[in-house]
Amino acid sequence: MRRIYIMSKLLIIGAGRSSSSLIDYLLSNAKAHSWHITIADANKAAVESKIAQYKDVAAAVEFDVNNAQLREELIKNSDFVVSMLPAFMHGDVARDCVRLGKHIATASYVSQDMKDLDVEAKQKNLILLNECGLDPGIDHASAMKVIHEIQDKGGKITSFKSFCGGLVAPESNDNPWGYKFSWNPRNVILAGQGTAQFIEEGKLKFIPYNRVYTQIETIEVEGYGKFDAYANRDSIGYKEPYGLNDANAMLRGTLRFPGYCKAWNVFVKLGLTDDSYKIKNANTLTYTDLLSSFLPKGTASVKEKLVAFMGTELDAEVMTKLEYLELFSNKAITLKEGSPAELLQNLLEEKWLLKAGDKDMIVMQHQFEYELKGAKHKLNSSLVVIGDDEVHTAMAKTVGLPLAITIKNFLTGKFKLYGVQIPLVKEIYEPMLSELESLNIIFSEKEA
Amino acid sequence: MRRIYIMSKLLIIGAGRSSSSLIDYLLSNAKAHSWHITIADANKAAVESKIAQYKDVAAAVEFDVNNAQLREELIKNSDFVVSMLPAFMHGDVARDCVRLGKHIATASYVSQDMKDLDVEAKQKNLILLNECGLDPGIDHASAMKVIHEIQDKGGKITSFKSFCGGLVAPESNDNPWGYKFSWNPRNVILAGQGTAQFIEEGKLKFIPYNRVYTQIETIEVEGYGKFDAYANRDSIGYKEPYGLNDANAMLRGTLRFPGYCKAWNVFVKLGLTDDSYKIKNANTLTYTDLLSSFLPKGTASVKEKLVAFMGTELDAEVMTKLEYLELFSNKAITLKEGSPAELLQNLLEEKWLLKAGDKDMIVMQHQFEYELKGAKHKLNSSLVVIGDDEVHTAMAKTVGLPLAITIKNFLTGKFKLYGVQIPLVKEIYEPMLSELESLNIIFSEKEA
Repeated sequence: MRRIYIMSKLLIIGAGRSSSSLIDYLLSNAKAHSWHITIADANKAAVESKIAQYKDVAAAVEFDVNNAQLREELIKNSDFVVSMLPAFMHGDVARDCVRLGKHIATASYVSQDMKDLDVEAKQKNLILLNECGLDPGIDHASAMKVIHEIQDKGGKITSFKSFCGGLVAPESNDNPWGYKFSWNPRNVILAGQGTAQFIEEGKLKFIPYNRVYTQIETIEVEGYGKFDAYANRDSIGYKEPYGLNDANAMLRGTLRFPGYCKAWNVFVKLGLTDDSYKIKNANTLTYTDLLSSFLPKGTASVKEKLVAFMGTELDAEVMTKLEYLELFSNKAITLKEGSPAELLQNLLEEKWLLKAGDKDMIVMQHQFEYELKGAKHKLNSSLVVIGDDEVHTAMAKTVGLPLAITIKNFLTGKFKLYGVQIPLVKEIYEPMLSELESLNIIFSEKEA
Repeated sequence: MRRIYIMSKLLIIGAGRSSSSLIDYLLSNAKAHSWHITIADANKAAVESKIAQYKDVAAAVEFDVNNAQLREELIKNSDFVVSMLPAFMHGDVARDCVRLGKHIATASYVSQDMKDLDVEAKQKNLILLNECGLDPGIDHASAMKVIHEIQDKGGKITSFKSFCGGLVAPESNDNPWGYKFSWNPRNVILAGQGTAQFIEEGKLKFIPYNRVYTQIETIEVEGYGKFDAYANRDSIGYKEPYGLNDANAMLRGTLRFPGYCKAWNVFVKLGLTDDSYKIKNANTLTYTDLLSSFLPKGTASVKEKLVAFMGTELDAEVMTKLEYLELFSNKAITLKEGSPAELLQNLLEEKWLLKAGDKDMIVMQHQFEYELKGAKHKLNSSLVVIGDDEVHTAMAKTVGLPLAITIKNFLTGKFKLYGVQIPLVKEIYEPMLSELESLNIIFSEKEA
């Protein structure tokens, strides 16, 4: 008697830039694992070109995120759903999935929607896989590997700092900011808003947005030099999940090339990153007018007023960066209406474009301090990934591959975990990291 | 044949501190105008003591804001509803009112809820009276009176600045901040958040929260000396409603006693006014610990670290204010959990309490610049109101009386306007201001 052959039906919703490596990986593994993959996106034609070589195992569907009926129908006809939509849209997809008895995976932070579905998902043996991208994702996996290794030897971790940045590769770094967009520009413009929370010398520490770009650390990655690091959101929430109850320092930070933070702080101090109100008829203004709106009145030129306003915070390097953006050249604003943040984003999308052939770069570094058999140790674990080009970016690889690998590992039975899961446990992170190594995404550890 | 006698049934929802003058006024006018007044509040006993002398014209009802059924029933049995609830609750009341064919009045800013009800209210000849308190309220009325007078003479207003502050009266000013709470403390803690928007020299101007307390103006009110003024929210939105299309300056500001803003800026810069996250187990900390959480690490005392952190922004006067709050004395935090803003509010409610016999003070000043027959003029219109005591405050009077007077004027047919109305038109502001004058709330005008 023949064994009944079971095909897994995967549904990927959202096929934008950051999905490319995930899609490539799953398509190229589809035949071997008997998967059929449906890719739903607003741009069906773009998906069709991506799946041209995989017609036997994949299909494209035109998808409107507001079409709840189509969403439900697609989910109903699948076994495992991957949501690559913007994070705020995962909730609707996840609720449909759990109701209809389907697994779901995202690269995003665990949302309240996911937490609310945890119990029902566990009862139904469904996984709600989250935080399986780069940051969050690879950061969790690689940190937990070291943490567990130290703890397994009987060591006690006293300090943990983790830094990550999506940057431009040195060979493509041709603007004074040392920055180009390899992911959602809006997130870069709004980065740091709120209050950073971390632990230092055993105490809670807070840095509000108004000074988060001025209280920076400098870290060094062998072969790549120094980077600025600013404190990133809530670092405290991971103390317990990471099992770091003994640590008296816990910080997650974001990396930029040296000098970026000092210059970005000009925008923060001016108020140019505010997204809470719209400026009407913005296209009757220039970027120089916009800058002037945030400066005290006076007869001096806008540049002179800015220099006076920033005082010692504005040096020649900062000015070079601002001039590169044509902020003093009466460059016209093209958006009809927008928040200051949206108008700034529109300018930066032009100036910080990843051009044809440009390579991006991911840098991650974990810094551990620990005590083992009475001795104090320091260990750094670092990762650098360079993109192939402006499409096959390091960002797309490091966001998409850990998720794709973990979905494969789940579907092939490498781990059996249900409900909300993030890559903190050995069953998930070990096979993920070892396959990432085979794909040249490799951490190097060094006693500091 | 006898004329049928029609009684108006008024419903007042919310009888907190800021409602006291409104309630007193309406109660004392009830008999003369054949009103019956129902006052609904969570604290029925407190209302009963207020209406003890008015049993024939008033009734108290215990009211839970979450009881939609009771709310509907009460509204159904009334002709005119006054919502003195927190602003975010007006929407539900207003929707019930319009559906059931009742008028409604509030002292609050016109909300989107109100705007959405405008057309239906006009069709049903119902008024949605808003912005009829102090600020917004008396400010609109008194400014429009002068604006119309100047325009009626053929003048052109080139600059309009309007300032208002709810302060403590000089005779009760016994703390170094020159401030005590005469209204919702939470609003004082969060004041200025967002970005102030105004017009200066014909251009849009923006000041973000991080520096709104540092870019202040000084104004002077005859007999009361100087005040600090910081830019308040969106001043631009009133340019058109005020008919000031020719003005090349338009600013609304908030007043504090001199020195307050410089000291408050310490909290802003530290991040202590952040309301976006909670600090757990706060009652294991002192206010000195809390301060320390926002300061860079180091071995110096918290006070020394703060001095170093603020640099030239912290002088002896600022330090006196901070010391008055016991910020360096390891004073225990009593709330179990709270945002930094909530913890700060808890401390200030103790330190800035309006004590028995304390008097508060309202200060308002409009500054007009205008051209008339080729000549340039400056005119200041100022108001100072001192409270009777800690219950019969200037704040309660100036918030409650304009609203109560305007309700009376509407019910007695002094004006017939429907839909969303604010006191910008002569039919509303003229009788309001003239009756306020008889109650000793009088603006004095002076060519500057």
